[in-house]
Amino acid sequence: MSGTLYGVGVGPGDPELLTLKAHRLITSAAVLAYPVNAEGYGFAQQIVGEFIQSESVHLPITIPMKTERSPARCAYDQAAKEIGVHLESGRDVVFLCEGDPFFFGSFMYLFERLNGTHTCKVVPGVTSLTACAAELGRPLAARNDVLKVLPAPLDANALSSELQNAQSAAIIKVGRHFEKVRAVLENLELTEQAWIVEAATNPHQTIRALNEVPEGERPYFSTILIYRGEEPW
Amino acid sequence: MSGTLYGVGVGPGDPELLTLKAHRLITSAAVLAYPVNAEGYGFAQQIVGEFIQSESVHLPITIPMKTERSPARCAYDQAAKEIGVHLESGRDVVFLCEGDPFFFGSFMYLFERLNGTHTCKVVPGVTSLTACAAELGRPLAARNDVLKVLPAPLDANALSSELQNAQSAAIIKVGRHFEKVRAVLENLELTEQAWIVEAATNPHQTIRALNEVPEGERPYFSTILIYRGEEPW
Repeated sequence: MSGTLYGVGVGPGDPELLTLKAHRLITSAAVLAYPVNAEGYGFAQQIVGEFIQSESVHLPITIPMKTERSPARCAYDQAAKEIGVHLESGRDVVFLCEGDPFFFGSFMYLFERLNGTHTCKVVPGVTSLTACAAELGRPLAARNDVLKVLPAPLDANALSSELQNAQSAAIIKVGRHFEKVRAVLENLELTEQAWIVEAATNPHQTIRALNEVPEGERPYFSTILIYRGEEPW
Repeated sequence: MSGTLYGVGVGPGDPELLTLKAHRLITSAAVLAYPVNAEGYGFAQQIVGEFIQSESVHLPITIPMKTERSPARCAYDQAAKEIGVHLESGRDVVFLCEGDPFFFGSFMYLFERLNGTHTCKVVPGVTSLTACAAELGRPLAARNDVLKVLPAPLDANALSSELQNAQSAAIIKVGRHFEKVRAVLENLELTEQAWIVEAATNPHQTIRALNEVPEGERPYFSTILIYRGEEPW
């Protein structure tokens, strides 16, 4: 009997935002895999730290954080091979994913490599998208609003043209693209309706109106929410 | 001491997709409020049925399912008044929301009415958006994809123009708009990349390629996912 690979969303940061299903799978996992940076730190692992059982085997996967793809490809090939060994020995592997596995997550690269030959299941999680809106205390979208999720690395023209006809937008992965995004929003006169949420539901969360943010970069896990749909009734 | 109103996302249908936080609040709720239709049936209440404690007071809220707004407005005004009475007596009220409270949910109408005068908190939940992708086994969006969430009641031209430049799109609330949406997708030659997920994570869930769906309407809780981003690597 071959094991199953579970891609498990662990939510945006607050451990209480794990689903019951994620909690069950993590607390009973034979093998726990998770992405870590070059220093060995993994955000997903940190989120679920209190739930990890001492008998679980750990499989930290170092993913190079470069814009070139080939080092990351090699890392996923290698990780898929290691996970495959566990699966073929009949051990289930739980791969921890920040937020949701299929919402701009890296789990898909492992899924793509293993799904043809092994049983793979995806457990959805709370995304930072709705967590940011909850913490901000403003609806994300209502009724027939068009909602757009726009990665901040897109160029200014692409961002601008998408923002022109959206009632609601979330700009994700803000990081070093912050000033470019702010300039786009200023040109569209959207600054007054824009808020930035950093590290949503984490202990160091911050929420500010866009025009209160000092010049410079922001953390990677920052989201700018813009809402100009109809006001609620 | 005044009570707190919690808008709690209960996810797309599988009770195991509740968050630990939702579970804690629901199992300890003094007052449980939830939307019901004219027949007294409430989907959110059904999802969490097994977790409801016998001592919780129930506050079902009948929301008219009409396109005209004034009957719904009256219903929300009345519901806000009833919830307010509990809060002012020091009882917390947990309002159950399908999916996520601020993602096309109706909780925002109560939030708007009560947030100025009472303590209101929002607990995000798993949306049908990511649950559909998980069940389908295809990523929703990756890297710098633009992801659009488009309500099916939008007119064909609006849908068409938004779909022309999205790597990924989810068309929600399909229901009686199915054939209009299918025609738009056919015109854009997107039918081959489109899937429809009905009742995601519920016992009667179905998943089909769009070109396998017979003519006619679909249920309200149907989502069409279109993905034409770069393939994973």
